[in-house]
Amino acid sequence: MSLFRPAIERMAGYTPGEQPQDSGWIKLNTNENPYPPSPAVLKALHATVDSGRLHLYPDPLAKAFRQAAAEVFQVDPDWILPGNGSDEVLTILTRTFVDPGQSTVYPYPSYILYETLADIQDAGSTRWLLNPDWSFNWSTAGNVLESAKLVFIPNPNSPSGNRWSDSDILRAIPPSGMLVLDEAYGDFADSPHRGELLRQPRGERIVITRTFSKSYSLAGIRFGFAIAHPDVIAGMQKAKDSYNCDALSLAAATAAMRDQNWMQANVAKIRATRARLAESLTQLGFAVTPSQTNFIWCTYPGRPHRDLYDALKSRKILVRYMKFPGVDWAPDGILDGLRISIGTDDEINGLLTALRHILSQ
Amino acid sequence: MSLFRPAIERMAGYTPGEQPQDSGWIKLNTNENPYPPSPAVLKALHATVDSGRLHLYPDPLAKAFRQAAAEVFQVDPDWILPGNGSDEVLTILTRTFVDPGQSTVYPYPSYILYETLADIQDAGSTRWLLNPDWSFNWSTAGNVLESAKLVFIPNPNSPSGNRWSDSDILRAIPPSGMLVLDEAYGDFADSPHRGELLRQPRGERIVITRTFSKSYSLAGIRFGFAIAHPDVIAGMQKAKDSYNCDALSLAAATAAMRDQNWMQANVAKIRATRARLAESLTQLGFAVTPSQTNFIWCTYPGRPHRDLYDALKSRKILVRYMKFPGVDWAPDGILDGLRISIGTDDEINGLLTALRHILSQ
Repeated sequence: MSLFRPAIERMAGYTPGEQPQDSGWIKLNTNENPYPPSPAVLKALHATVDSGRLHLYPDPLAKAFRQAAAEVFQVDPDWILPGNGSDEVLTILTRTFVDPGQSTVYPYPSYILYETLADIQDAGSTRWLLNPDWSFNWSTAGNVLESAKLVFIPNPNSPSGNRWSDSDILRAIPPSGMLVLDEAYGDFADSPHRGELLRQPRGERIVITRTFSKSYSLAGIRFGFAIAHPDVIAGMQKAKDSYNCDALSLAAATAAMRDQNWMQANVAKIRATRARLAESLTQLGFAVTPSQTNFIWCTYPGRPHRDLYDALKSRKILVRYMKFPGVDWAPDGILDGLRISIGTDDEINGLLTALRHILSQ
Repeated sequence: MSLFRPAIERMAGYTPGEQPQDSGWIKLNTNENPYPPSPAVLKALHATVDSGRLHLYPDPLAKAFRQAAAEVFQVDPDWILPGNGSDEVLTILTRTFVDPGQSTVYPYPSYILYETLADIQDAGSTRWLLNPDWSFNWSTAGNVLESAKLVFIPNPNSPSGNRWSDSDILRAIPPSGMLVLDEAYGDFADSPHRGELLRQPRGERIVITRTFSKSYSLAGIRFGFAIAHPDVIAGMQKAKDSYNCDALSLAAATAAMRDQNWMQANVAKIRATRARLAESLTQLGFAVTPSQTNFIWCTYPGRPHRDLYDALKSRKILVRYMKFPGVDWAPDGILDGLRISIGTDDEINGLLTALRHILSQ
């Protein structure tokens, strides 16, 4: 007799993504930022290590971080909830709003974690199939959104890299639930938002999530946060561990948030490299989706994507091969392709050289 | 209309414990270790900050840490699951084993978080009332344990500081569920365990949880772990975020685990101070429960405990005033008293001087 919850029993075991711990890789598979975090972050971390306070619990209210984030997003600190990565914030959201048997929705193809979170909660998860140009399919929206307690929308989206308009986002708020606007890649857009939608008339039905893993170059510290109306934050607070953020990540995130210039400079470099990569891939014969993120989604007509992935990996270049079943407008109902993170110019040159060589064989 | 889950709506908002961020306090309220973490930990942290790898995701498999912990507990690495503090491990356990409406059990008075975790999960939580001498009440055990999916037992216990025998623990395994043995304070016992109970015939029904917040002097980094049979760990893995532990806490915990001598030396100092504090409190007229932890539970017959707490706080000395309703053998059904963390000898001298002064007034 299994003692696990049936919902857990049914789930497949987790297979972690490729995170090689050795060096020598050109790592373009998990959308990390190739540039280092702000020197102010490293300084804050060293100071915290030497503070003589690591034996004490961290500030459970995360006052310094909330103040810093509130200033950037022009809200009060009680609009901010920090988490152990934005993945934890998404877990907290599920546990705050979705009971077993209730339903969640996410655009598809998109971030598959939303479905895993629903599975753990023993809730339903509906894939709202996107159009071939990655726009929302409003002809199916009514049925899909009607019963949703949570709608997860990553904006910009992964793997496609596109960004939906504000009016599209507002229209996707479910009639009896909340909309989670996952802005993990928000800073890479040409005109990044700063919580504007929360100040719209229906803004109290939106929770924005943000991460330090991408634009702030801090995937290693696991830190993200939610921005929402204070009563929403107060409810989420009940579903979280009191000390979910440690003293070091709090110090790093606070310093990173206070150095917007550093982040913006790295983002500008990534946007420039992104444009160059898109152009080069197009010249090589790839179909490239215009990207508002730090990665590019591309397909290649003449060769299986899995083979391209393998050929790159054998040269110690990691990109992400992705496969989405159940896409009725794709050949055999399966959409696949490559998602390539934007590295440094040198890394992207290495990738392009390898691709040219592979494609000429 | 509230959009929160009813279980969340019903819960009281979280009131964090007192964690003053200013200095000058004698802080004896949350069982932190007064001694610094191992120099090897600080070295590992500085090296990780300077590694040039903070922009990358941490190792989702936590291989180095699991190897280090496995050696100390004489198991294979697949018996180990790391978490963002042992509180997160307890959350993972609830989500792995307990469906809404099912029941959990914990001895009472004990760690109130077990009840909060059941509340979030919309599960039941039964208080298994302890005897006045803090022993298990076997006359009520049958009914209480019969339907439990999880039984949480902190051993040693808080606030009492006592430790139950191995045979008591094995007897408390529920017939259709798992026993969680929360060894947050395990290293402070006179004869600490190293996972022995897992190697007993019924050991596959036990999960041991451990933390770095107490004996390893690392409350600031939020790190804990579970030890259990590999199939149990595999199930728990499905309910956790992939990257629940960050690169810095992984490095710190690995270094701390590999420096057992440092931890043992601090624990020895704390045991010695504990004996002295127990004796001094007894001389002052307190009733002191013999402690196997880094704190002491005491009551005072002649003065309200709340007044003693306030008088100490006004002198910038923080202890924990605790009040447990529903204890039928206590006056008016309410047990209250003071839980005092073992600080340095200087801090404990400061406390005793203040108490002598307060009690003479």
